[in-house]
Amino acid sequence: MSERIGNRTIKISDGIGIISSAGIAGHKEGEGPLGEYFDTTYTDDMLGQSTWEKAESRLQKNAAQLALDKVKLSAGDIDIILAGDLLNQCISSVFGLRSLGIPYIGQYGACSTMAQTMMLASLLCDSGACRKAMAVTSSHFCSAERQFRFPIEYGGQRTPTAQWTVTGAGAAIIDDSGNGKPIKAVTIGKIIDYKIKDANNMGAAMAPAAADTIMNYLKDTNTKASDYDLILTGDLGYIGSELLIELLSREGIDISKNHNDCGKLIYDRKGQDVHGGGSGCGCCGSVFCSYIAKQLDEKKLNNILFIATGALMSPTSSQQGESIPGIAHLLNITS
Amino acid sequence: MSERIGNRTIKISDGIGIISSAGIAGHKEGEGPLGEYFDTTYTDDMLGQSTWEKAESRLQKNAAQLALDKVKLSAGDIDIILAGDLLNQCISSVFGLRSLGIPYIGQYGACSTMAQTMMLASLLCDSGACRKAMAVTSSHFCSAERQFRFPIEYGGQRTPTAQWTVTGAGAAIIDDSGNGKPIKAVTIGKIIDYKIKDANNMGAAMAPAAADTIMNYLKDTNTKASDYDLILTGDLGYIGSELLIELLSREGIDISKNHNDCGKLIYDRKGQDVHGGGSGCGCCGSVFCSYIAKQLDEKKLNNILFIATGALMSPTSSQQGESIPGIAHLLNITS
Repeated sequence: MSERIGNRTIKISDGIGIISSAGIAGHKEGEGPLGEYFDTTYTDDMLGQSTWEKAESRLQKNAAQLALDKVKLSAGDIDIILAGDLLNQCISSVFGLRSLGIPYIGQYGACSTMAQTMMLASLLCDSGACRKAMAVTSSHFCSAERQFRFPIEYGGQRTPTAQWTVTGAGAAIIDDSGNGKPIKAVTIGKIIDYKIKDANNMGAAMAPAAADTIMNYLKDTNTKASDYDLILTGDLGYIGSELLIELLSREGIDISKNHNDCGKLIYDRKGQDVHGGGSGCGCCGSVFCSYIAKQLDEKKLNNILFIATGALMSPTSSQQGESIPGIAHLLNITS
Repeated sequence: MSERIGNRTIKISDGIGIISSAGIAGHKEGEGPLGEYFDTTYTDDMLGQSTWEKAESRLQKNAAQLALDKVKLSAGDIDIILAGDLLNQCISSVFGLRSLGIPYIGQYGACSTMAQTMMLASLLCDSGACRKAMAVTSSHFCSAERQFRFPIEYGGQRTPTAQWTVTGAGAAIIDDSGNGKPIKAVTIGKIIDYKIKDANNMGAAMAPAAADTIMNYLKDTNTKASDYDLILTGDLGYIGSELLIELLSREGIDISKNHNDCGKLIYDRKGQDVHGGGSGCGCCGSVFCSYIAKQLDEKKLNNILFIATGALMSPTSSQQGESIPGIAHLLNITS
């Protein structure tokens, strides 16, 4: 059984944790600072498929299979799979995971999906609804670019605040065996809207949601930012991260020393020409499920907050003059 | 705590149930056989908004508010809201529910969303993660038509198997007080793909998923189809319903006497020119949350299976030659 603490945080029972994870990525990500940590990197971003969308589906399938292989499980051992992505009607997840035959609950949390699916997976394991659940997400630079922005072939200029959608995927298996990296608590995000309308500045649109969730979590748990080895957001990028630090400092919360962001970690800012940093569901997905999970396994990190952020807009909503609401879901994960 | 029974079914604890619901609909639906049962029907399908997408958002907002008003609750009394819709990036839900300020977990289950959100809401109430959760969904004929098919102004011919997307929304509040209509068990759907490729025959694409879920539920619970007052699918429409009955009869399961479908119930087949029947997340949403909920309240129905079905495709996946996988989530609800 889970237990509500404070206003919005939910304490997860002992024994619920991440028993396996896999983070995989494309060639640009492979050439970045985390290249050596990904479980797989592809030199061919098409993954042998005929379309970018099918390539992205394949990323989800491969990440899920790798997470299973690492702990010698088969798809039949997983009771529930929670997955989502950025594509219209979440087709990367559907077509990527269709062949696994696992009871499926489709999620949409934009770039917050890795945290959203892991949060629900841990709650469902804690509730008795399942023994083992899998959380999966992906993004692909080319499928996202043409759906949200311009045809790749158009070669559009990018603004300095624009982020680069990561080609990558993450999959995590959570169970109640007591053998995993413990998930101690989660805080569900609210839709927070500071009326940002620049679709090329997602970091600014999402930072207020991250600030709201972190602030509420610290209050609910009566803990301080300095109690954690790492406060890892994703994917605010460079500009969103600065705004988050500023927003929290106004509330007397200093995360400047132990904050980092998946969108900052994944690319070399100077060498890889990514402007605002990385973004996309696959950014947090690939970074958390490989680099961060390994640091927890090796006890280089022991008590972290993982807060994935999402921008809840569509090209249609932006064309109709709407602002960009953000959301951020949080998990407290230990080694 | 929930309890797994059989292969895929989850038994929900006593005390978890639906304490309020609201089903609202547009003018065509208001003129149909269920017109008098909807909580609100609109003569203006724009709901005073400037775009169809904003009108659909307003449907979600109004349904959610009405469900709260019926039991004199405010948004602050709800711990978690689960919502989704058919529009790209689920913008109806985000912009419709943004102002409520309730911790939000976005769902994508296509037309299975009403069952998916109610299923998760009941599991989360049962887990201790929340006391009260709300499940919401919507669809709008005009926003769906232009996104999935043709511009309305084009006046495209419809094939005889095509279904008519319902303009409507449903909202249900679930809690652990013991005062609601009890939700006794749920079965999570698998992605089932019989390789149907006709995007104008969604009923055929979704019927195999409904058959799979119903069959597994009956086996897991060791019950017979005749044990239930009503086996309500949605939204298979006329063709999908016939196929479902046929598929189950091959397995020795006869649902011909107590089966109905939200897509058949909502329109007058002869008088309203809807070809294959109703569809869209708002079909099940509006029918279950008004007409069916009232029959349970009045004990005209006492023990039902509600199985909402979704077609997990996008225009892009169909253009790329993919088939249309289906999914169906089931709830056993009593009076």
